Amino acid sequence: MKIGILTIGNELMNGRIADTNSAFIAREMNLQGWPVETMMSVGDDFEIIADRLRYLLSFTDAVICTGGLGPTVDDITTAAVARAFDRQLIPDEKVLAYLKDIFTRFNLRWTENNAKQALFPEGAEVIPNPVGTAAGFALPVGEKLVMVIPGVPSEMRRMVPEGVISVLRRRFPQAVLQTVKQTIKTFGLGEAMVDQRLADVDFDALGVNVGFYPVFPENHLVLIARADSQEQAQKKIQKAVDQVTARLSDCIFSYGEETLEEKIAAAMTEKKLTIAVAESCTGGLIADRLTDVSGSSVYFERGLVTYSNEAKIQLLGVPADILEKHGAVSEETARAMAEGVRKLAGTNLGLSSTGIAGPTGGTKEKPVGTVYIALTDGEKTVCRHYAYRWDRRRNKLISSEAALMMLRNYLQETPS
Amino acid sequence: MKIGILTIGNELMNGRIADTNSAFIAREMNLQGWPVETMMSVGDDFEIIADRLRYLLSFTDAVICTGGLGPTVDDITTAAVARAFDRQLIPDEKVLAYLKDIFTRFNLRWTENNAKQALFPEGAEVIPNPVGTAAGFALPVGEKLVMVIPGVPSEMRRMVPEGVISVLRRRFPQAVLQTVKQTIKTFGLGEAMVDQRLADVDFDALGVNVGFYPVFPENHLVLIARADSQEQAQKKIQKAVDQVTARLSDCIFSYGEETLEEKIAAAMTEKKLTIAVAESCTGGLIADRLTDVSGSSVYFERGLVTYSNEAKIQLLGVPADILEKHGAVSEETARAMAEGVRKLAGTNLGLSSTGIAGPTGGTKEKPVGTVYIALTDGEKTVCRHYAYRWDRRRNKLISSEAALMMLRNYLQETPS
Repeated sequence: MKIGILTIGNELMNGRIADTNSAFIAREMNLQGWPVETMMSVGDDFEIIADRLRYLLSFTDAVICTGGLGPTVDDITTAAVARAFDRQLIPDEKVLAYLKDIFTRFNLRWTENNAKQALFPEGAEVIPNPVGTAAGFALPVGEKLVMVIPGVPSEMRRMVPEGVISVLRRRFPQAVLQTVKQTIKTFGLGEAMVDQRLADVDFDALGVNVGFYPVFPENHLVLIARADSQEQAQKKIQKAVDQVTARLSDCIFSYGEETLEEKIAAAMTEKKLTIAVAESCTGGLIADRLTDVSGSSVYFERGLVTYSNEAKIQLLGVPADILEKHGAVSEETARAMAEGVRKLAGTNLGLSSTGIAGPTGGTKEKPVGTVYIALTDGEKTVCRHYAYRWDRRRNKLISSEAALMMLRNYLQETPS
Repeated sequence: MKIGILTIGNELMNGRIADTNSAFIAREMNLQGWPVETMMSVGDDFEIIADRLRYLLSFTDAVICTGGLGPTVDDITTAAVARAFDRQLIPDEKVLAYLKDIFTRFNLRWTENNAKQALFPEGAEVIPNPVGTAAGFALPVGEKLVMVIPGVPSEMRRMVPEGVISVLRRRFPQAVLQTVKQTIKTFGLGEAMVDQRLADVDFDALGVNVGFYPVFPENHLVLIARADSQEQAQKKIQKAVDQVTARLSDCIFSYGEETLEEKIAAAMTEKKLTIAVAESCTGGLIADRLTDVSGSSVYFERGLVTYSNEAKIQLLGVPADILEKHGAVSEETARAMAEGVRKLAGTNLGLSSTGIAGPTGGTKEKPVGTVYIALTDGEKTVCRHYAYRWDRRRNKLISSEAALMMLRNYLQETPS
């Protein structure tokens, strides 16, 4: 089954908004095993919508349209679709009653233009909108299908899996396959290196589709398998996951959608550990990320952003002679920062960063991107040196990730 | 002049990557006064590319294509374009020499497939690529023009203003207008409120195009004026800027691309002031943002993320009875945090945040989203209460923005 996508809205055509609906719909369709053949975007123009829609439908089985279903005069998608296939617009009494009920409940004044959202082309099946007033619809055109849903991403994202896909599965039963999806998140290798390590895995032979999604500084893999049954698809996925794991285990931190911060939160809570953080080059980003998880106050005691040498001495007890002898950006300082913050905070763990985020401040011996990360549990302190080559923001991001990954590895090796 | 856009790549069709090239090109075209009529995306398929391209060109004056210009077998855009308009592929000797030179300089082995990047359809004009090996081209088709550039965003973003637009201006001189663009960045009002405050400004009568770009938690406005001369366009813009300023002056922090952090950096440096930050609910995000500016170590002395009451007492000298009587989330605590961190760091300014980021931790008196921000210069301390209603990450983001905005307002009112 071939799919076409038509996104509608003047805000797309002037570039005010980048179309993310098409990529979302394409992912969902591919998950079902239905390839998208052409995507198109047009403005809120009656004739253009009708014309492009007929063109798209000429070489696809179903076209999914988003946008232009609001109550105002420039929302003309429903009327344009009706015109494209010579249908009358007919009010749906159930949708009309639902809309009037919403207006009553929220004490809004009903005006006649709102009735527009209850009009649908003759022969259309309504696709309910669980989170808004704009219902969608599916219009059969011969053996083919035109589907229209709102362009508001939060509504569209609900209505594709709940409405669009179920209508498509019902109308095109011969195209229904069971699908299993598995996300694997990695950190520590560039996309090219991940690619290279997986070069000898024959995903095609395994019947598994693999996608690479770099989300700086992480690389995510998404494996998709389709089969007649859920069990068969699951079996295919498992074989691929095993082969990926064998080649990337040192870099994988999540099998699923969980973030590195969430993985750390679960382990810290389970092991009943507490942590304090002392940051220099990451400037608060490690603390910011650790505290992005609700409930982090249980294990995150404090974070210190010690930019000046005085702050490192005063707040962390870093000996002045270490700073003098080795410099603020050094393994010795990183160790003293981690040990100092742990001791003063009275936590189980201490984590630190020091480095040169750039673009200024680099020297020949310590170029921009030089970073030291240290982690201590009071008995043992580990420290690693990194040499990054990014801009300031990305140097901060990748350094914070390296610090969180060091913490995650420590938690993995530590018995509960 | 009507423009069509065709983005090419299998990664678009499976939804692995959302197409951001189209929006970028559309913005650039609109800046020139050239509306985009239809955007399309297709996979790396010979026949489909040729067919869709001919269709797009049938109702536009110029089509801009991106993607599929690499040296590998699945990069087929050039060949598909040549096929679509019955042209031979001819090597360009200058491009070939340039490519071979790159291979020599970087000590790479030349293989014959690389010569593919020097092939262009007969009659095409080469569009140089200043940052990569894939040159683009412009192919006249009757009175119309097909232009092809790489899909790599960093290359595409260079080649549209430097190559594509100059070729279009030369080929379509009757469509050339002078354009002036002005960005205005605001914080403190929702998009709907900005819209409402500007409702009585007749941008059409002023001959100015206005776009709203919400970049949470900020709202950016982009004003564009076009005229026969730069001076005329500038005059139009100035009138619109004056009217916008009269209605939004309390919310505007930047006329241009500068960020709030950069505005603060310039003022702190100019006034030779230093700052220390004490954060609770923002979890390090204020420090992270302040240190995103290179050179921030001059004015940013330290940041403390004091999540626990112990840390607030120990590191900031917040009196235990204030915490007991008013709670950690209170105006009194916010004031004591700002004053404490300033005193202990010995800086000119102290800035603090305390609140409930959520989704847990709220009470009836202090619901999720309750935030206090305080700023002190040692003589006077100001504190403001905010009630936000977002998710955890956005509550952190908008709270950090409110803190930076408070600092920015202070700096504006303070003589150098």
